[in-house]
Amino acid sequence: MNPTNTPATETVGSPPAEMHRAALETLKTALDGAVLHITLNRPEVRNAMSLRMVTELRAVLRNAESGGVVRVIVLRGAGGNFCAGGDLKDMASARMRSGTGVDLSASTSGYPAGDPAADPVAQTSAQFGELCVAFASTPLALVAVLEGTVMGGGFGLACVADLALASETAVFRLPETSLGVVPAQIAPFLVERLGYSQAKRLAVTGGHLRAHEALAIGLVHAVHDDASMPPALALVLTNILACAPEALAATKALIGKARLTPPVDLVQEAAAVFSKAAQGPEGQEGIAAFLQKRKPKWAPA
Amino acid sequence: MNPTNTPATETVGSPPAEMHRAALETLKTALDGAVLHITLNRPEVRNAMSLRMVTELRAVLRNAESGGVVRVIVLRGAGGNFCAGGDLKDMASARMRSGTGVDLSASTSGYPAGDPAADPVAQTSAQFGELCVAFASTPLALVAVLEGTVMGGGFGLACVADLALASETAVFRLPETSLGVVPAQIAPFLVERLGYSQAKRLAVTGGHLRAHEALAIGLVHAVHDDASMPPALALVLTNILACAPEALAATKALIGKARLTPPVDLVQEAAAVFSKAAQGPEGQEGIAAFLQKRKPKWAPA
Amino acid sequence: MNPTNTPATETVGSPPAEMHRAALETLKTALDGAVLHITLNRPEVRNAMSLRMVTELRAVLRNAESGGVVRVIVLRGAGGNFCAGGDLKDMASARMRSGTGVDLSASTSGYPAGDPAADPVAQTSAQFGELCVAFASTPLALVAVLEGTVMGGGFGLACVADLALASETAVFRLPETSLGVVPAQIAPFLVERLGYSQAKRLAVTGGHLRAHEALAIGLVHAVHDDASMPPALALVLTNILACAPEALAATKALIGKARLTPPVDLVQEAAAVFSKAAQGPEGQEGIAAFLQKRKPKWAPA
Repeated sequence: MNPTNTPATETVGSPPAEMHRAALETLKTALDGAVLHITLNRPEVRNAMSLRMVTELRAVLRNAESGGVVRVIVLRGAGGNFCAGGDLKDMASARMRSGTGVDLSASTSGYPAGDPAADPVAQTSAQFGELCVAFASTPLALVAVLEGTVMGGGFGLACVADLALASETAVFRLPETSLGVVPAQIAPFLVERLGYSQAKRLAVTGGHLRAHEALAIGLVHAVHDDASMPPALALVLTNILACAPEALAATKALIGKARLTPPVDLVQEAAAVFSKAAQGPEGQEGIAAFLQKRKPKWAPA
Repeated sequence: MNPTNTPATETVGSPPAEMHRAALETLKTALDGAVLHITLNRPEVRNAMSLRMVTELRAVLRNAESGGVVRVIVLRGAGGNFCAGGDLKDMASARMRSGTGVDLSASTSGYPAGDPAADPVAQTSAQFGELCVAFASTPLALVAVLEGTVMGGGFGLACVADLALASETAVFRLPETSLGVVPAQIAPFLVERLGYSQAKRLAVTGGHLRAHEALAIGLVHAVHDDASMPPALALVLTNILACAPEALAATKALIGKARLTPPVDLVQEAAAVFSKAAQGPEGQEGIAAFLQKRKPKWAPA
Repeated sequence: MNPTNTPATETVGSPPAEMHRAALETLKTALDGAVLHITLNRPEVRNAMSLRMVTELRAVLRNAESGGVVRVIVLRGAGGNFCAGGDLKDMASARMRSGTGVDLSASTSGYPAGDPAADPVAQTSAQFGELCVAFASTPLALVAVLEGTVMGGGFGLACVADLALASETAVFRLPETSLGVVPAQIAPFLVERLGYSQAKRLAVTGGHLRAHEALAIGLVHAVHDDASMPPALALVLTNILACAPEALAATKALIGKARLTPPVDLVQEAAAVFSKAAQGPEGQEGIAAFLQKRKPKWAPA
């Protein structure tokens, strides 16, 4: 019962429903109370994101959301790096299927490039985009612990986390345009995290940042060394677990709506959300605990 | 004629129209030239916001907007705290009316929770939301001076001010989710002030911040100690009063529109706004004063 | 071939098509490889923006975008200042045409103020707004080097640049409201650059900022002294030129869309953009160069 431990190496917790008969190949997971630790586990390629990893991440998230146990996800990478982005081999393989291969020949596939219904490259991209959307809109709390390489799609995942703690070793980069491609699926999450202007600035210049520069622009929320990271993460988890889970989910949903809605248009909806929470079990328990000067049931002892 | 003074304790200025026969119970107001100082005045409960306070704040604002005298509102709290948020007693009272009470029993009221037309808890929440919207969209300049506790609804009010000056004593918190409820009406203003990502981060972790942390994320615009606050506020007021009042109001309105409108769609409207100002009395006076190397009529001597 | 040089004083590069027979009066331009240096060149009035300058800037941009040579624009001002904003003489002249003059008499023109079709003041404003929109939405990379006075419309131009490098001498100001007018066309770009809250705060208080304050709120991305500016600009240009031009343009366009679109609505479009880039010539060359451990064709040697 020490939420700050590095997740145990064995995979624990119930596996995703879709994977009852298939072990996780690209992730390690460890359940510690209400905290699910997910470790991207392809350290030999700096945890580059394969299609398999995308599929497993979505399945693990779906399982966590529906299981009724997990309240916080902590996402990190194995071997001192967070994630080097999309795996180029999978991209090449998708190209092969679309007929363009890596031989630089023009497409001969007959697939209209960019039609997701028929274009394997677009399909691969959309699958990653749907993963980002799923993690960005999860009602669970999402914490990212960022070490070493945080690049491309990994940069995008860092942006969707509710809270990002960076190691002093973290190095950020958006290498897409220097490879002739586009940080397409992560563009919306760069904007969500950094605002339009910093997102544009980083995308235009390749996004090179050290941990403290990332802190200065709000890409991460704290920077820690090896000694201070575990207690910092423990404090974050304590703060999150002090929040009622349904209230936290409702708050995330409202804030998401507020991003693109004028405040005046949200007054009635916010009133309904508040009333439902206040008169529901969490609100009743929260006020009772407050009046009785005890911790509410959902808070860690 | 010293705009940096703590407002005098007597209530001056014409009382709100709706309150001609009712004194202000929860606020102190003091008019100093074109600056209306409003002090939340329930220091025994750290200026927690009762329904009465909400009603009085709206009435005072309406009066200030329509009176033609006030150009700047300075909002602060009495007794060393800004505001501890919504008053739980009022919430309990609203629950009583809705039949749920504070006895933790399930609702037996027959009111559909969250229907603002019939649900007193939702109505109470909506009234606070409308207060926030009114202060956020006022054409007057709004300055908040933040000391001590800035919590919940008080945190929200701090976010709607055009300019927030924090005392070193200021401590910010969003305790809602730890009480089982939702910072619902303030969510849109967290997003307006902090951007989506920091708003989400604070809401998920309880929003604990000291003054300098609040400065780092743009929640406040300056931090001062007891000695430097009065001259800092005086300088802010001088800068604001140097701006023509109609031009300031038009600028606030355009910036509000620009938040959720693509720039290209605002060119013609901005041109009309500019032309009206430039060819109106303020524009004529402003250019004349500039050419004659004197201060315009609206600027303090 | 030294991109960090101050642009040569003679005008080089092909002049804008519209200006084949008219030399540039208000700008100096210098083409250095794929980098077009544009210098606002009315130093005797701190490069105040006349209608002629607005017209020339639009023509030079149009030419750069269509010529197929320019990939980066570096915008700065001559004589130690960036730009003092709109030229009051042009405003006065527009007023004369509209009949209001500068004699403070009421309008006798019969033109409805603010009708851009008939109101010369509104037309002048809209022309500047269209200039800002054109620079804000250019597919080219745009870098601003900001020295001395950065005021009014110049403040706006600073906000549309993808990357802004400030000299320690830079002083920012929004004097419009103190002159009785409105920073109308620049309001949307203040919001894009600074976010809603800081934009509002600056507009309400006159926008006085020193270079380091501008850095703290993200108005500029770095501050340099005379010695460190040239190598800093050189590094920025190297980073930008390492990005494939079509990919950079597609990235800017997507980020622009993402500002006001929910991420989930962009997944399919982002997939199409990604696929088109990956399977197009730049993507093919980028991967080939990566696999062959060489620089891609578009990168500087």
